[in-house]
Amino acid sequence: MALTDPDRLFPVEPALRGLARSLYDGVRDLPIVSPHGHCDPRWFAENARFPNPAELFVIPDHYVFRMLVSQGVPMTSLGVPRTDGGPVETDPRAIWRLFAERFHLFRGTPSAMWLDHSFEHVFGLDQPLSAETADMYYDHIDACLARDDFRPRALFERFGIEVLATTEGALDDLRWHRAIRESGWAGRVVTTYRPDAVVDPDFEGFAANVAQLGELTGEDTTTWDGYLDAHRARREYFRSFGATATDHGHPSARTENLPAMDAEALLRKVLSGSFSPAEAEAFRGQMLTEMARMSLDDGMTMQIHPGSRRNHSAPVFARHGRDKGFDIPGPTGYVDALKPMLDAVGMEPDLTVILFTLDETAYGRELAPLAGAYPSLRLGPPWWFFDSYEGIKRFRELTTETCGFYNTAGFNDDTRAFCSIPARHDVARRSDCAYLAGLVATGRLSETAAHEVAHDLTYRLAKQAYRLD
Amino acid sequence: MALTDPDRLFPVEPALRGLARSLYDGVRDLPIVSPHGHCDPRWFAENARFPNPAELFVIPDHYVFRMLVSQGVPMTSLGVPRTDGGPVETDPRAIWRLFAERFHLFRGTPSAMWLDHSFEHVFGLDQPLSAETADMYYDHIDACLARDDFRPRALFERFGIEVLATTEGALDDLRWHRAIRESGWAGRVVTTYRPDAVVDPDFEGFAANVAQLGELTGEDTTTWDGYLDAHRARREYFRSFGATATDHGHPSARTENLPAMDAEALLRKVLSGSFSPAEAEAFRGQMLTEMARMSLDDGMTMQIHPGSRRNHSAPVFARHGRDKGFDIPGPTGYVDALKPMLDAVGMEPDLTVILFTLDETAYGRELAPLAGAYPSLRLGPPWWFFDSYEGIKRFRELTTETCGFYNTAGFNDDTRAFCSIPARHDVARRSDCAYLAGLVATGRLSETAAHEVAHDLTYRLAKQAYRLD
Amino acid sequence: MALTDPDRLFPVEPALRGLARSLYDGVRDLPIVSPHGHCDPRWFAENARFPNPAELFVIPDHYVFRMLVSQGVPMTSLGVPRTDGGPVETDPRAIWRLFAERFHLFRGTPSAMWLDHSFEHVFGLDQPLSAETADMYYDHIDACLARDDFRPRALFERFGIEVLATTEGALDDLRWHRAIRESGWAGRVVTTYRPDAVVDPDFEGFAANVAQLGELTGEDTTTWDGYLDAHRARREYFRSFGATATDHGHPSARTENLPAMDAEALLRKVLSGSFSPAEAEAFRGQMLTEMARMSLDDGMTMQIHPGSRRNHSAPVFARHGRDKGFDIPGPTGYVDALKPMLDAVGMEPDLTVILFTLDETAYGRELAPLAGAYPSLRLGPPWWFFDSYEGIKRFRELTTETCGFYNTAGFNDDTRAFCSIPARHDVARRSDCAYLAGLVATGRLSETAAHEVAHDLTYRLAKQAYRLD
Repeated sequence: MALTDPDRLFPVEPALRGLARSLYDGVRDLPIVSPHGHCDPRWFAENARFPNPAELFVIPDHYVFRMLVSQGVPMTSLGVPRTDGGPVETDPRAIWRLFAERFHLFRGTPSAMWLDHSFEHVFGLDQPLSAETADMYYDHIDACLARDDFRPRALFERFGIEVLATTEGALDDLRWHRAIRESGWAGRVVTTYRPDAVVDPDFEGFAANVAQLGELTGEDTTTWDGYLDAHRARREYFRSFGATATDHGHPSARTENLPAMDAEALLRKVLSGSFSPAEAEAFRGQMLTEMARMSLDDGMTMQIHPGSRRNHSAPVFARHGRDKGFDIPGPTGYVDALKPMLDAVGMEPDLTVILFTLDETAYGRELAPLAGAYPSLRLGPPWWFFDSYEGIKRFRELTTETCGFYNTAGFNDDTRAFCSIPARHDVARRSDCAYLAGLVATGRLSETAAHEVAHDLTYRLAKQAYRLD
Repeated sequence: MALTDPDRLFPVEPALRGLARSLYDGVRDLPIVSPHGHCDPRWFAENARFPNPAELFVIPDHYVFRMLVSQGVPMTSLGVPRTDGGPVETDPRAIWRLFAERFHLFRGTPSAMWLDHSFEHVFGLDQPLSAETADMYYDHIDACLARDDFRPRALFERFGIEVLATTEGALDDLRWHRAIRESGWAGRVVTTYRPDAVVDPDFEGFAANVAQLGELTGEDTTTWDGYLDAHRARREYFRSFGATATDHGHPSARTENLPAMDAEALLRKVLSGSFSPAEAEAFRGQMLTEMARMSLDDGMTMQIHPGSRRNHSAPVFARHGRDKGFDIPGPTGYVDALKPMLDAVGMEPDLTVILFTLDETAYGRELAPLAGAYPSLRLGPPWWFFDSYEGIKRFRELTTETCGFYNTAGFNDDTRAFCSIPARHDVARRSDCAYLAGLVATGRLSETAAHEVAHDLTYRLAKQAYRLD
Repeated sequence: MALTDPDRLFPVEPALRGLARSLYDGVRDLPIVSPHGHCDPRWFAENARFPNPAELFVIPDHYVFRMLVSQGVPMTSLGVPRTDGGPVETDPRAIWRLFAERFHLFRGTPSAMWLDHSFEHVFGLDQPLSAETADMYYDHIDACLARDDFRPRALFERFGIEVLATTEGALDDLRWHRAIRESGWAGRVVTTYRPDAVVDPDFEGFAANVAQLGELTGEDTTTWDGYLDAHRARREYFRSFGATATDHGHPSARTENLPAMDAEALLRKVLSGSFSPAEAEAFRGQMLTEMARMSLDDGMTMQIHPGSRRNHSAPVFARHGRDKGFDIPGPTGYVDALKPMLDAVGMEPDLTVILFTLDETAYGRELAPLAGAYPSLRLGPPWWFFDSYEGIKRFRELTTETCGFYNTAGFNDDTRAFCSIPARHDVARRSDCAYLAGLVATGRLSETAAHEVAHDLTYRLAKQAYRLD
């Protein structure tokens, strides 16, 4: 008995299935390139065992606990910490049982496929998770986690990861990255420069963060030049720990290109703490253009992840804080929003800006037309809720005809759920091969070309877009 | 010869078709649960014969006459009444012929499938409707309607309807529901509380309606507390006629959560007749939150049907009034619009708010992410123009991966075309089984689970979401 | 060896493929009706040879050169002229090689299919284009172009074009159309009235253009009545060269219906050169309603092509001017935008307004509901980036269920790439037949009806909507 179908996600029609399987056979065992994600570098620095099944699969995975919450399970019963330090469930087995009893809620979701893939291929389980098997699962996974071959570095190697990028804030001292390097371990784990906390005036503690940025770099971050130089210094520091990319999680894709004097005045305004929403938006927008200019200088690839309304529920945010499954997408425009930045640097062939979206209406209407014209632009893979079979299918169908394959940037797993990394890359490889099989069978692509494209989508484009060679 | 293909809407690939057929076999004969619709309770109270084929199939069905109008047939030639009482076609056979001659206009539409299903399965016809068969059809259907087994109650029973909800305005005396109950007939027909006429300041006669609400309930509806108490009283009255749900048809999904003093001032403003569009919008928004609070008290499920620009054509509205096929959807946002209500009551596990949309871009971007997090939210089935094979396919593909099946609310037929009810439920069952077959065949769902889900989507989820047990 | 698969774009499942092939066999050889496009009438007036492969396939085709630019090829290296007359590549063979070496960039795009179709079916080539075959291709195509049977009129006849509409500005003297007529050649080439340069206050040289319109017509175009009469005169002139349609390329679909006095004041304002963006928008909107009124008088079909943000890149526009692949779509609303015009003339059965969109979200939400109600409205085929297999599939899936087939207007190739015309019509015919085959196989359309619909979509609806009988 197996939890996963060896032909999963392939088309059903026999000729199509054969084509998809053949394409997949050519890319299944390629190394994993993970150029954007949220794993904790400490795992690889300390190489300690993962604590227990609930902390591995439930508590940190907002895909998982949000579904349980949506069906009436209190967050506290799932062990999600409270900001006031108040009591939450601490028995990992109790949390695991709540999850196991409700595993049917995930039917038809990518979470179910990722979890089943991890259960079967990482932990060797072969019976479906349910109330009945909850304890067996718990005991078995817990026993595995106690073994050396289930420690982070061993799994990293077993997963065939060639390179894994984590994401750290601009103020991070990168101590765990330093420890990884000093450990002599050969695994390639690099950081990514994510400056939201010192770029977004609406971020908690923004002014203090900017002051700390000044202390770290010896720059006067109350002046525009000093503030920009401080970013340059931190980017250089991040590059010294392997960073090849920056990442920007803004509420919108808006960019600006203000004269330096106006930018300086805006910096003073947002540092004063007394600013309007429009000024905060303009400042974030100006910083995207500045980051693009710095990328032209230092060669870092720039990622823009816009459009999430973070912390949608005020009571949940007050009780549990950020990143608790209540980040909800909204309409996101690109065509007007990106114009100032693109007018400034968009035609530069040496710049790479990777665009993501949580608003799929932009794929065909704005993103593919933009990426199919500006040499600096590439489209990132389907993000977050759209990192799924149907999401990938829509992405390819809505973008390929306008910007082709070579203006896209390969796959990102974008996850903090370490054990799901092989599962996520496998879903992407299968979904892309299913799409390519359809093109071949309908005379839109030769079979030879399809094999080359499959390899590019799996491996080469991610390395190229993120300059990971 | 048959008008309908026994394998209609199933996938064509033989293995997929076999799976879909098997899933459908398990749900085809389940009772019909119709928790939201617009049938006239008088039909079941009086049990009189339906007057003629044109009044059964053409005149009251805006799906049908709007298509004929779009190809140049004047509304008056179809017998649609004029608000000025001016002359319109009164010969039902003439109207029927206009329809029959143009039946090809419906090719590829759900209306064609619903109509063919009714013609074949309700009336036993087996030749396609056309100019040639128009009179034969007319005579045959008319003869059927004269028979006792084609009266409303007989059809209700023959259709296998377990429960049918109608929709009445807040001021309705529910006399027909009273008559049904007093008749001793066993059919379960319940009402639904639809207070738009006393909640929407832009509704014709709003202030007079609110005054009448006061008279009906003995409350002073010029005060905020009295106005809310009047709603409470009417909700209780509706519940005494079986209502388990309220329904709200607003131009947008906007909600508000104002302090009582501000709400009271806003009530005075909108009752005065001198108010801005923004104030009308705020009042409607406030009332959605109030209705949600009342639902927490009395247990009624709340439905929100936003986003239709009603009566788009000014000349058609002037000549023929409301509900004449000129209600056109527009962009509809949920993420910002619902936040005030959700911050107030969204995390309550005992509240059920069912969200509908006419803007499919919201399925994946906003609705599934919201329903996959808030315990109070469920997604209603595809509504209106999207109650169709392709509409259901898109709904499932765009929502399942994010919020699963169990945050959806089963099927609604939402119709005033009584004879189409079995056809509509059949289309939904087939479309869902087709989708589930695809999941099974691509390794995304076990066949055992698919059978359980098919049953849930057909029967259990509607009863649960509408508390119809 | 062939470049194109004889079963391309047909479904893969054998039964479906057989159905699609059979439907396609019935329409494959129908004459081409091309009611909207951008071919140069001079080609047919002079019947000179096309200069070389690069000028035929690369330099004028923004689909082609934008993709090369997006991957870092400078526009100047592709021979795209500079507005300052500065140097650009002039060697057509060098340009051709740049294109040939990068032909893999087009994998999966409609451009690749159109090009391969032209290479094989117009020029008889049978090896894939690549760096290796670049010179062979160049020499072969160039040799063909020197032959009489590759001159414009010969190709027009070989392509089976029954009628071809070009598009000329309101100030054009139509000399090439006159020359075609006087030549005695039997090919039917008609013009289309495109008045953007004298209707859009943001157009370069608007006031001078309007003055020239006055000179051409002897009307005082500084008065509202004179300005409208000048349009009437030019429409009549265009009709004398076969025009049956007008075309309007506006940034939005906004319409207005102002009193004449306000319209006159607005005309004065926009002619003065000192006006706001809102006034320019209102003027364009008013002119759409005026054009609709004139269409009621003179019977011309009206086309609205809204929603492109033209010349998105300021540096590219400054260096190379208009129509250089940097026109990017944006969100486009119809429901509110069209209401003034539709309230004025929308219910007129003798008016035909064909709506296009670059925002696919409007198909199901706004366009199909509008076209399924207003007798004056028809939906144009998928436009620009969406003129493709997937684009046509989405168009049919999103509109048919709501407005049927008979509120759509057949196919437009909308191209200036003459050799791609047969390829584009072939893709549309195949894509529609693939869609219809799916309807037949799933019991949504009889096979007999499908053959009739295929013929209508290929031939009859375009002739009818554009009154080309």
